[in-house]
Amino acid sequence: MRQVHPPARLLMGPGPVDADPRVLRAMAAPLVGQFDPFMTDTMTEAMVLWRTVWDTANEQTLLVDGTSRAGIEAALVSLLEPDDRVLVPVFGRFGHLLAEIGARAGAEVHTIETAWGTVFDPGQIEDAVRRVRPRVVAVVHGDTSTTMAQPLAELGRIAHEHDALLYVDATATLGGNPFHTDEWGVDAATAGLQKCLGGPSGSAPVTLSPAAVVTIERRRHVEAGIRTADDAEPHGSPIRSNYLDLAQIMEYWGPRRLNHHTEATSMLYAARECARLLVAEGMATATGRHARHGAAMLAGVRGLGLEVFGDVAHKMHNVVAVRIPDGVDGDAVRGALLDDFGIEIGTSFGPLHGVVWRIGTMGFNARRDAVLTTLAALEHELRRAGFATEPGGGVTAALAVYEEASP
Amino acid sequence: MRQVHPPARLLMGPGPVDADPRVLRAMAAPLVGQFDPFMTDTMTEAMVLWRTVWDTANEQTLLVDGTSRAGIEAALVSLLEPDDRVLVPVFGRFGHLLAEIGARAGAEVHTIETAWGTVFDPGQIEDAVRRVRPRVVAVVHGDTSTTMAQPLAELGRIAHEHDALLYVDATATLGGNPFHTDEWGVDAATAGLQKCLGGPSGSAPVTLSPAAVVTIERRRHVEAGIRTADDAEPHGSPIRSNYLDLAQIMEYWGPRRLNHHTEATSMLYAARECARLLVAEGMATATGRHARHGAAMLAGVRGLGLEVFGDVAHKMHNVVAVRIPDGVDGDAVRGALLDDFGIEIGTSFGPLHGVVWRIGTMGFNARRDAVLTTLAALEHELRRAGFATEPGGGVTAALAVYEEASP
Repeated sequence: MRQVHPPARLLMGPGPVDADPRVLRAMAAPLVGQFDPFMTDTMTEAMVLWRTVWDTANEQTLLVDGTSRAGIEAALVSLLEPDDRVLVPVFGRFGHLLAEIGARAGAEVHTIETAWGTVFDPGQIEDAVRRVRPRVVAVVHGDTSTTMAQPLAELGRIAHEHDALLYVDATATLGGNPFHTDEWGVDAATAGLQKCLGGPSGSAPVTLSPAAVVTIERRRHVEAGIRTADDAEPHGSPIRSNYLDLAQIMEYWGPRRLNHHTEATSMLYAARECARLLVAEGMATATGRHARHGAAMLAGVRGLGLEVFGDVAHKMHNVVAVRIPDGVDGDAVRGALLDDFGIEIGTSFGPLHGVVWRIGTMGFNARRDAVLTTLAALEHELRRAGFATEPGGGVTAALAVYEEASP
Repeated sequence: MRQVHPPARLLMGPGPVDADPRVLRAMAAPLVGQFDPFMTDTMTEAMVLWRTVWDTANEQTLLVDGTSRAGIEAALVSLLEPDDRVLVPVFGRFGHLLAEIGARAGAEVHTIETAWGTVFDPGQIEDAVRRVRPRVVAVVHGDTSTTMAQPLAELGRIAHEHDALLYVDATATLGGNPFHTDEWGVDAATAGLQKCLGGPSGSAPVTLSPAAVVTIERRRHVEAGIRTADDAEPHGSPIRSNYLDLAQIMEYWGPRRLNHHTEATSMLYAARECARLLVAEGMATATGRHARHGAAMLAGVRGLGLEVFGDVAHKMHNVVAVRIPDGVDGDAVRGALLDDFGIEIGTSFGPLHGVVWRIGTMGFNARRDAVLTTLAALEHELRRAGFATEPGGGVTAALAVYEEASP
């Protein structure tokens, strides 16, 4: 077999998308030892940079060595003791995932649901909190399955007034949509690098409020083999996972540097570089860039004569769901886009599989050339599939948005 | 902040060690979509290559997206139901880790221990199996904390005769010491890339025997959000982790390609390249290379007048523990080696912390120049620390081993 040699692709689906080439190059840097001063300095720098990305003063802002899903599970298994109640407002596939992970952690899971393509009014969530009295409210910020972004600004207050902690899965939104951890009262939030953050999947940024840290620390249990007489027994039930035990992971990232996993150095380099590039750009500039290219793509697909799915007022900046026109084979068009143009767009899950395409504009691919190329190619494939669309309608509509944006 | 720019290092500790530059370059390849034909082909190629590394015909030979510790937990949490008995023969720090992870999975953990620096006679393990009647025997192959390698050849037979499965943590040995999954009757084995395999930490190769697959499949539980009417409820208790649920991970790597985590593409490229390079070299050649450079380092440290720790007859090829001479400050010598020469060697854990140095010769650093440079530098630092050592004694002794090996 030969060296890995991927075909040329432009990844315009709901993520993962093309990583920023600077992030890929950072991963090629040589390794250092786990307790090398350069290693611990790099971890500390990553914490500083990610605090800016998360817009937080949280000391405990670190990385879990796994994909975004590992970050979700680390937060939930560390916060939730068996039989704790967790409330999950579900508005798409990834809300179901939070419920699933909560159940596997042994928690008593309560869900409320709203139709795919809509979000919750904060009052609906407050009513459910009052009824369920959960230990944790766990909510997805942007659910790529529907492209909706749940407004979060009031949820921290709601949770705290009822003695609950607020956990947010920001995998699909962070870096491309405003996210204000402290201002919104978010107690725990997690992400992955492969959406708006410009990196590959495999490292999960996490931030924890002081209140979340107190909850997790109560359950701290130093593992056999490195425990000393000074290590107290846990007060709560021990965290069910060793690998995803945030109490131990905090001690590995903290001044004690207590041996836990062997840090995935190349992914640490990648995560540091993702944050470094975003901080250099400025978070408001980065989310503004996603808003602009998202608006251009939205206008573009409408210019092609396609109908947009869901409550567009609550759409994430970085992905749009378009209804597959009647009589058009959605998977055939996606396959032709990939074969003819090397462009990937997505389908969706469950009730939306085969009903919508999801087109992303995020991370390194939140770019004018990527938006216009995708619209031009999609126009050709739609016409070949028998859908009547005005020549140049998509590109023209997107260009109009760009002209408005920079007069 | 600037781009990541690590200092020049030669990592001659117990791992992680320098990654092969070809593996680092593979990680810089562009990403593709999760269900791109190139992606699924790459996953399938990785399975084929890793079967050769593991010396197995096991269909279920795949990667877990996390460090070696994630692989251990995936195996144990997927194999062990709460209250199942697991027997862990402990001969160092990482045996304690298996016990810890087993306990967090809810299992009833039984351990037997032998002094650090020794291994078990298979009869001792058989006696314990007869007494405990475990569901799983979980053992470390090579425990870097002591440098010992437990002989495994009889353990599969012992486990199977008593209706147990055999799990082996091969993190520190695979690729540098013979490992024969099928011949030895190993039911589940896991590793990480950062020791003899030439890569960075962050991807965990796993192989599962048909018997292990049956045990895990019984507990298969497709998660909410993607479950269909055809998916049966689990027969055993559902696996407690979602992220490390090998039943779901097998379906993601198998023909159904059921959405689970977002595969860490760059780490997949790295893991494929690690295996590709080993298979191209030949597994017997690779383990022979580790044996040769390990023997040279062993002779070299003795040539410096240092005493070797533990039962050398059972030493792993890829690491040696040497007693820190009386009156020498071990951490000061390690620090000076790093500052003056950019060379890292390790200390150890628990009873061996400050008692031994651990010097590795593994992966990309199982090389003659790395061995000789380390011995020359160590000689200087020993002399500066006041330890009388014969000029050139280490390098000369190592060279003699190389001359014998290639007459």
